[in-house]
Amino acid sequence: MFRNQYDQDVTTWSPQGRMHQVEYAMEAVKQGSAAVGLKSDTHVVLATLNRASSELSSHQRKTFKVDDHLGIAMSGIISDGRSLCRYMRNECLNHRYVFEAPLPTARLVRQVADRAQVCTQRSWKRPYGVGLLVAGFDKAGGKLFYCCPSGSYYDYKAMAIGARSQAAKTYLERKFEEFASADLDTLIRHGLQALSASVTDGELTKDNVSVALVGKGTPLTLLEDADLEPHLAALADEVGGDGAGSGGAMEEGGGADGASAPPAAPDGASGAAEAAPAPEDEPPAPMET
Amino acid sequence: MFRNQYDQDVTTWSPQGRMHQVEYAMEAVKQGSAAVGLKSDTHVVLATLNRASSELSSHQRKTFKVDDHLGIAMSGIISDGRSLCRYMRNECLNHRYVFEAPLPTARLVRQVADRAQVCTQRSWKRPYGVGLLVAGFDKAGGKLFYCCPSGSYYDYKAMAIGARSQAAKTYLERKFEEFASADLDTLIRHGLQALSASVTDGELTKDNVSVALVGKGTPLTLLEDADLEPHLAALADEVGGDGAGSGGAMEEGGGADGASAPPAAPDGASGAAEAAPAPEDEPPAPMET
Amino acid sequence: MFRNQYDQDVTTWSPQGRMHQVEYAMEAVKQGSAAVGLKSDTHVVLATLNRASSELSSHQRKTFKVDDHLGIAMSGIISDGRSLCRYMRNECLNHRYVFEAPLPTARLVRQVADRAQVCTQRSWKRPYGVGLLVAGFDKAGGKLFYCCPSGSYYDYKAMAIGARSQAAKTYLERKFEEFASADLDTLIRHGLQALSASVTDGELTKDNVSVALVGKGTPLTLLEDADLEPHLAALADEVGGDGAGSGGAMEEGGGADGASAPPAAPDGASGAAEAAPAPEDEPPAPMET
Amino acid sequence: MFRNQYDQDVTTWSPQGRMHQVEYAMEAVKQGSAAVGLKSDTHVVLATLNRASSELSSHQRKTFKVDDHLGIAMSGIISDGRSLCRYMRNECLNHRYVFEAPLPTARLVRQVADRAQVCTQRSWKRPYGVGLLVAGFDKAGGKLFYCCPSGSYYDYKAMAIGARSQAAKTYLERKFEEFASADLDTLIRHGLQALSASVTDGELTKDNVSVALVGKGTPLTLLEDADLEPHLAALADEVGGDGAGSGGAMEEGGGADGASAPPAAPDGASGAAEAAPAPEDEPPAPMET
Amino acid sequence: MFRNQYDQDVTTWSPQGRMHQVEYAMEAVKQGSAAVGLKSDTHVVLATLNRASSELSSHQRKTFKVDDHLGIAMSGIISDGRSLCRYMRNECLNHRYVFEAPLPTARLVRQVADRAQVCTQRSWKRPYGVGLLVAGFDKAGGKLFYCCPSGSYYDYKAMAIGARSQAAKTYLERKFEEFASADLDTLIRHGLQALSASVTDGELTKDNVSVALVGKGTPLTLLEDADLEPHLAALADEVGGDGAGSGGAMEEGGGADGASAPPAAPDGASGAAEAAPAPEDEPPAPMET
Amino acid sequence: MFRNQYDQDVTTWSPQGRMHQVEYAMEAVKQGSAAVGLKSDTHVVLATLNRASSELSSHQRKTFKVDDHLGIAMSGIISDGRSLCRYMRNECLNHRYVFEAPLPTARLVRQVADRAQVCTQRSWKRPYGVGLLVAGFDKAGGKLFYCCPSGSYYDYKAMAIGARSQAAKTYLERKFEEFASADLDTLIRHGLQALSASVTDGELTKDNVSVALVGKGTPLTLLEDADLEPHLAALADEVGGDGAGSGGAMEEGGGADGASAPPAAPDGASGAAEAAPAPEDEPPAPMET
Amino acid sequence: MFRNQYDQDVTTWSPQGRMHQVEYAMEAVKQGSAAVGLKSDTHVVLATLNRASSELSSHQRKTFKVDDHLGIAMSGIISDGRSLCRYMRNECLNHRYVFEAPLPTARLVRQVADRAQVCTQRSWKRPYGVGLLVAGFDKAGGKLFYCCPSGSYYDYKAMAIGARSQAAKTYLERKFEEFASADLDTLIRHGLQALSASVTDGELTKDNVSVALVGKGTPLTLLEDADLEPHLAALADEVGGDGAGSGGAMEEGGGADGASAPPAAPDGASGAAEAAPAPEDEPPAPMET
Repeated sequence: MFRNQYDQDVTTWSPQGRMHQVEYAMEAVKQGSAAVGLKSDTHVVLATLNRASSELSSHQRKTFKVDDHLGIAMSGIISDGRSLCRYMRNECLNHRYVFEAPLPTARLVRQVADRAQVCTQRSWKRPYGVGLLVAGFDKAGGKLFYCCPSGSYYDYKAMAIGARSQAAKTYLERKFEEFASADLDTLIRHGLQALSASVTDGELTKDNVSVALVGKGTPLTLLEDADLEPHLAALADEVGGDGAGSGGAMEEGGGADGASAPPAAPDGASGAAEAAPAPEDEPPAPMET
Repeated sequence: MFRNQYDQDVTTWSPQGRMHQVEYAMEAVKQGSAAVGLKSDTHVVLATLNRASSELSSHQRKTFKVDDHLGIAMSGIISDGRSLCRYMRNECLNHRYVFEAPLPTARLVRQVADRAQVCTQRSWKRPYGVGLLVAGFDKAGGKLFYCCPSGSYYDYKAMAIGARSQAAKTYLERKFEEFASADLDTLIRHGLQALSASVTDGELTKDNVSVALVGKGTPLTLLEDADLEPHLAALADEVGGDGAGSGGAMEEGGGADGASAPPAAPDGASGAAEAAPAPEDEPPAPMET
Repeated sequence: MFRNQYDQDVTTWSPQGRMHQVEYAMEAVKQGSAAVGLKSDTHVVLATLNRASSELSSHQRKTFKVDDHLGIAMSGIISDGRSLCRYMRNECLNHRYVFEAPLPTARLVRQVADRAQVCTQRSWKRPYGVGLLVAGFDKAGGKLFYCCPSGSYYDYKAMAIGARSQAAKTYLERKFEEFASADLDTLIRHGLQALSASVTDGELTKDNVSVALVGKGTPLTLLEDADLEPHLAALADEVGGDGAGSGGAMEEGGGADGASAPPAAPDGASGAAEAAPAPEDEPPAPMET
Repeated sequence: MFRNQYDQDVTTWSPQGRMHQVEYAMEAVKQGSAAVGLKSDTHVVLATLNRASSELSSHQRKTFKVDDHLGIAMSGIISDGRSLCRYMRNECLNHRYVFEAPLPTARLVRQVADRAQVCTQRSWKRPYGVGLLVAGFDKAGGKLFYCCPSGSYYDYKAMAIGARSQAAKTYLERKFEEFASADLDTLIRHGLQALSASVTDGELTKDNVSVALVGKGTPLTLLEDADLEPHLAALADEVGGDGAGSGGAMEEGGGADGASAPPAAPDGASGAAEAAPAPEDEPPAPMET
Repeated sequence: MFRNQYDQDVTTWSPQGRMHQVEYAMEAVKQGSAAVGLKSDTHVVLATLNRASSELSSHQRKTFKVDDHLGIAMSGIISDGRSLCRYMRNECLNHRYVFEAPLPTARLVRQVADRAQVCTQRSWKRPYGVGLLVAGFDKAGGKLFYCCPSGSYYDYKAMAIGARSQAAKTYLERKFEEFASADLDTLIRHGLQALSASVTDGELTKDNVSVALVGKGTPLTLLEDADLEPHLAALADEVGGDGAGSGGAMEEGGGADGASAPPAAPDGASGAAEAAPAPEDEPPAPMET
Repeated sequence: MFRNQYDQDVTTWSPQGRMHQVEYAMEAVKQGSAAVGLKSDTHVVLATLNRASSELSSHQRKTFKVDDHLGIAMSGIISDGRSLCRYMRNECLNHRYVFEAPLPTARLVRQVADRAQVCTQRSWKRPYGVGLLVAGFDKAGGKLFYCCPSGSYYDYKAMAIGARSQAAKTYLERKFEEFASADLDTLIRHGLQALSASVTDGELTKDNVSVALVGKGTPLTLLEDADLEPHLAALADEVGGDGAGSGGAMEEGGGADGASAPPAAPDGASGAAEAAPAPEDEPPAPMET
Repeated sequence: MFRNQYDQDVTTWSPQGRMHQVEYAMEAVKQGSAAVGLKSDTHVVLATLNRASSELSSHQRKTFKVDDHLGIAMSGIISDGRSLCRYMRNECLNHRYVFEAPLPTARLVRQVADRAQVCTQRSWKRPYGVGLLVAGFDKAGGKLFYCCPSGSYYDYKAMAIGARSQAAKTYLERKFEEFASADLDTLIRHGLQALSASVTDGELTKDNVSVALVGKGTPLTLLEDADLEPHLAALADEVGGDGAGSGGAMEEGGGADGASAPPAAPDGASGAAEAAPAPEDEPPAPMET
């Protein structure tokens, strides 16, 4: 059997000019439960599906406030994400202390991405295994960025990451032209609708969903539990009509998670690939959410 | 035979985006004897099953006081856990010295988890092989957290970790709705009942059990030896009726220890897997308890 | 099967005196979308094709202003390039602060190349996976350099890098004698024409193209969106007549991307090479653009 | 043949959550000659069997005084033990200097164990290959601890470690209920009796035995040579009657050295296991005693 | 197939007392285009053949001025050479600043060679992949040295390095007795003639040749472009008669590049050696010139 | 063939709890020529057999004065031993400077052994390959220690180390009861007699023997060349009668060099073991004496 | 085929207690051209055979002045030797500055040897690949030492190292009894005669020989070029009669280079050994002389 010999060290290039360890870390993002972000002209909204390992545990939070003007949602290895979140909070605090002004979203995102890039170029580290959706509102207006383990970041109108996020993205692509002019409640409803497309069993409840929003005159606010109920109720009303369509989208997109096709498994034993359960069906690794 | 080539270095990602070394460290937690935590509206209780290597030795302590408002129970590699416990005590002392107030439970838990996360991202270290149940009572009320070797932490209403903990969790899941309003004695009895579900031979005695409790107006207290006897007696009264049920629970849950299914052995030789004793029956590695 | 044993560590020489890891990093440059640079006697122009991972995302920027007199376009791993860009900006700022004058282009290029060289001679690092086209205008006139992951740099009259850049280079080689005396608009049009030769499907639009220009009396200017429209319109007019020729050039050059033939795959299994998709057809690795 | 790939680096977890290198270091303890510790209400006694490589050499000391209130006996790699002993002496000296009081036994033991734990979590170190029996007498009374290479420590009423220590432990388990109320001479005699159970050829003499004792009002005292003679004589008187029993115990326990069953040899070739001499019969590695 | 196990780490000796990695780095020198040095009693001349990757690029410079009395020509990995050049310039500057005198050639050469030696004795570095011809004129007269990746240096009357340099050396060996008394123009012509012997296709032009000269009363001067034309014209006149001879020399020496026979390929598969193109015919690795 | 996978890194334990690299370093001691030490009540004597690589070289010294009261003899890698000797001299000097008294022998020996132990617990070092016989005379009387590469040390009445030392040890074991009361000349004669037992061809001469002695009122004295002649003459007289016996001893002990049986060759191919020359017959590695 | 697994890291012991990497480095010494040293009662003389890579290059110097009273000749990797030479010069300078006296030869030699020893005990270094003959004259008289890569040094009456040095040693062994009383010219002639025995083709000329001498009242002097002619002429006169004998000696000793037999090739394939050219016939590695 052919063994890929270039995919074990983060500082090793493959002959095709790829960094397999970085791509594998990006797979970790796809194993976490879905997170969705979208923006209108006035607001940016993040919505995450929170997993609970059992009914005894609370759902693990995946949405965090960084500063008054900035929040993040993450998918993948949450403990890696916490480490980046701590860094972001420090940077915002320092900037406020020195300049008496919020740190611009784009600048903070670049700093976080640079921090992630360093982890792809030192042999004793590993790339972070977490993807961040960053929502901010500053003088430049509302911004939604996606920071990826490779140290890249992208500016999005709307984006979904994590397990089964393709269905959510299909929804967003179909609807995003309505977002710019949407009011906040509609925007939240769109976010929840997209998120619900990534759920195969069960449904969105006030327990397994978090929403964060930030916008013109609205500091970053986390909606949880009771705050979510009106939005979920509004969603339920609509799903009767719209759900079939989003279910169809989910099926179309079911085989291709995330932004790009998964890199071919380097071990490439086709027989093994058949026998192995598809990533979608596998239980996630214990530490991912 | 297929060899998993991604499971030997802590800084290596597998093509599926998993960190096998971290998952293996989580297996170490499942090898330790069981620890149980649960909380009511006013109190948090930890109960551990302490192993003794022979009748000559005292039972190894697995429950520790960290500060007046906070205690921990651990399962897995106790020497790793001691190292974390020392860190927690220092943090609490420093916080009291600087702020003249107890360190909030959630904040300490996050710091410990961050410390564990670092060990998953440096090539010259290894993940800690211990799971911590942290019980604290502060302004935010009673809290029960589980800190895992991956650097993740979870907020629980009730939780059991360690060997055969599935039986204990089954008990907790069946009863947890009664906990919120339970008085302290009842809460302790529930904890012991859950713990006893994880014992296959022998029974709970004042020697092999420790209980820690903390709550409104109650600083962290360790119950050992004689202090435990009334509680054990109460338990014995009840077990006549209830024990059969918990035994049944144990059988149901017998094959699936811990929070998730054990990761497939990467060496995957099915013949070997049959021949090998199931982890449940194996004697634990000498250093685990 | 013969295994190349000299291509995994950046500090290992092959018996033929080659550094395979450095060559592999140069392959990463060829995976990014195309970037083109060209100069007249008075101006230097950079043009890049920007990829967007979906219609939800903005196109990823690949053209950056470094200082008033200097800009860069990059192809390959953008997060690596950002790290070099940050370094260049700092050097320019420091030079202005100390000498109250812009840092000469050639000198900055040498410093960046030296920085890249160090990454090819330390075992714990990896070569940068990005190629930079540097356009500057200083006392020495307009300059166009290409900085490559090996730490080499080259002075060019016109150059194209990235995926399918051979077609663009063929265009440039056919036309470059006209560049010296071209006015700025013509020069930009030549750049866009070259860039369009590297596009197989779709066409250049104001969204997927960025242009940077710098010249005598013209500080570095980025043309994006609306600013590009007149130039794209002029291009469209002309393509009717000229496009067929550039298409033909593209076909000729289709098999040989970049400045030199790709290094022979060290694993050299000819059967595998046939089966594998040609690099041109493969989707780029997720982090490259 | 199946090769265990998880047992060569101290920082590598096995898929079962074990640290094989730590377990192997614990095997080194079992290769050293036996050491026995036991305590009454008023005294703690250590007794060791000292090997001499030939009649030309003195017997190698394995019992050391650390402070007036504390002594240790060791089994395994003595040079590793000496390094720990030096550390313990320094800690005791510093504590006396700062607090003008002896360092409590339990606290010193925890510090030593923490030091051993660090060696199990750094890739450039190895676990210590020595087990320590620590006997101390302080305000908390007499204490007997066993510190193991894993960084764990255990509180014992009586304990035996080293080669053929199972026979000694069997003796201790049969008799330990008599120890609490025993006077010092009886306690020493019990210790020697246990030790003699681990001797297969030859017998205890004033040359190959050391005894250390500490207790209420008795600073740590080493009994060697002539001081031992009365105790050995008393032992000889008794052995006539009791020896047969202890010999039987030895046979029962002969196959299972130390506190737990030896970890299965990871190479697991059963044929090889038969051919190989049992560890009991093998000459010890030259540096162990 | 036999695998050479001693040729991958720079700090590993082969059983024959060779350092293969250093020898491989010396192969890199042979891949660069040719460089020639020669001296008369009054002058030292360097001539290099500069490659251009396409007609769009300028030819890459391989001749550098270090100080008024000293210049270098290089062959191999130019980015490595630039790093050494920068070091040499600093040393010369410092020496002038401290001693108000030029740094003697031999001393600078020894320092550079010592720097290269260090790279052959540290496991985290690699030997430089560049050969330097150093021409200097100081109180000791004109000097021509060759610094090699191994950290050795040699004093030469005339020398050629790089691809097909054997033909150039053959020319130099045939003529060198005429050099001592030659005037500068003749010396340059001899250098160009030698250089032309290493060219198989095309010819020397003012674009692909650089000449550096230094001598009594002549500070180091670079001849490029127009400055070279008279010398190239003189060469052209002569080649009619002499070229055939040098062509013959080239054929004789065609199989043995550089100063010594190439080390036997450590993989030693004779069949593979036949199939593989001869190093002469292979395109050079992209980063070498 | 089975490959021992635990014997290449000094920080790796074997499953049997052995450190093979340390044992291999102890083999180096057995390859050096013999060294003998013995003591009476008043004196300690060291005698070494010095090898000369040819008649052109002087014999390599293996006996060194450390201080007035202390000397050493070594066997194995002499350059390693020199490094330890330098350390010992420094320690003695510092002690004399600070305390105005000689450093007690036992304390110095422990320090040297601790230094050796560190080399067995760091992955970037290797154990010393030298054994030291340390002879000292201080307030505690005459002392003879053996320091071994494992970091262990032993107190001896008499000891021989190095190649064929078993024969010398056999002699010492037969005679050592006479040593205590022997006068100095007799003690030296016993030392030489023991040493001569380890010589298979040739005999002891004033050139190939060094003797060091220290004792009550006698500072450390080296006997070489002429000083040795009376002692060698006395030896010659006696050998007529006694030599046969020692020869016989040599034959008995011929197969088992050094203090313990050689560790089983980890490659364990019995056929290879037969074919391989016995260590006794092999020429020593060039650097050992 | 059996692979030696102990000969790749300098810090790995073989099961036989050998350090193969150190022995391989000693092979490098044997690859360099010969160097000879010898001494009379009043003088010490070094003579080296200098190789030139072609007639264009000067012969590489292998004899160096370190201080007025001390010089060295080297064989092996000259760039390693230069690094040691620089160290020796610094030590001599510092000693003269501090003590206003020359550094004693034996002391300097020990320091150099200690420096070489360190390189055999650190995993990130490699042993030096050079042998040094050190000639000094100080208060202790004339001294000739050989410093070897292992960190050992030896005191010699006369010695030859490098390729075919066995023939030279044979000459020295036959004649050395005449050296003590020889006058300087005779001593030099003996040195040259020994050196000529190591030459198989060609002969000694003023170009390929260097001689260094130091003695009572004679500071270290290098004889080169013209200074050598009378000595070479004297040699030529004598060779007519004596040459045959030295030729015979050369044949006897032809198979055994250097001070000891070459270590058995660890790969030990006897067939390969036959096929491989004898080390004598192989061209030396490019960097050795």
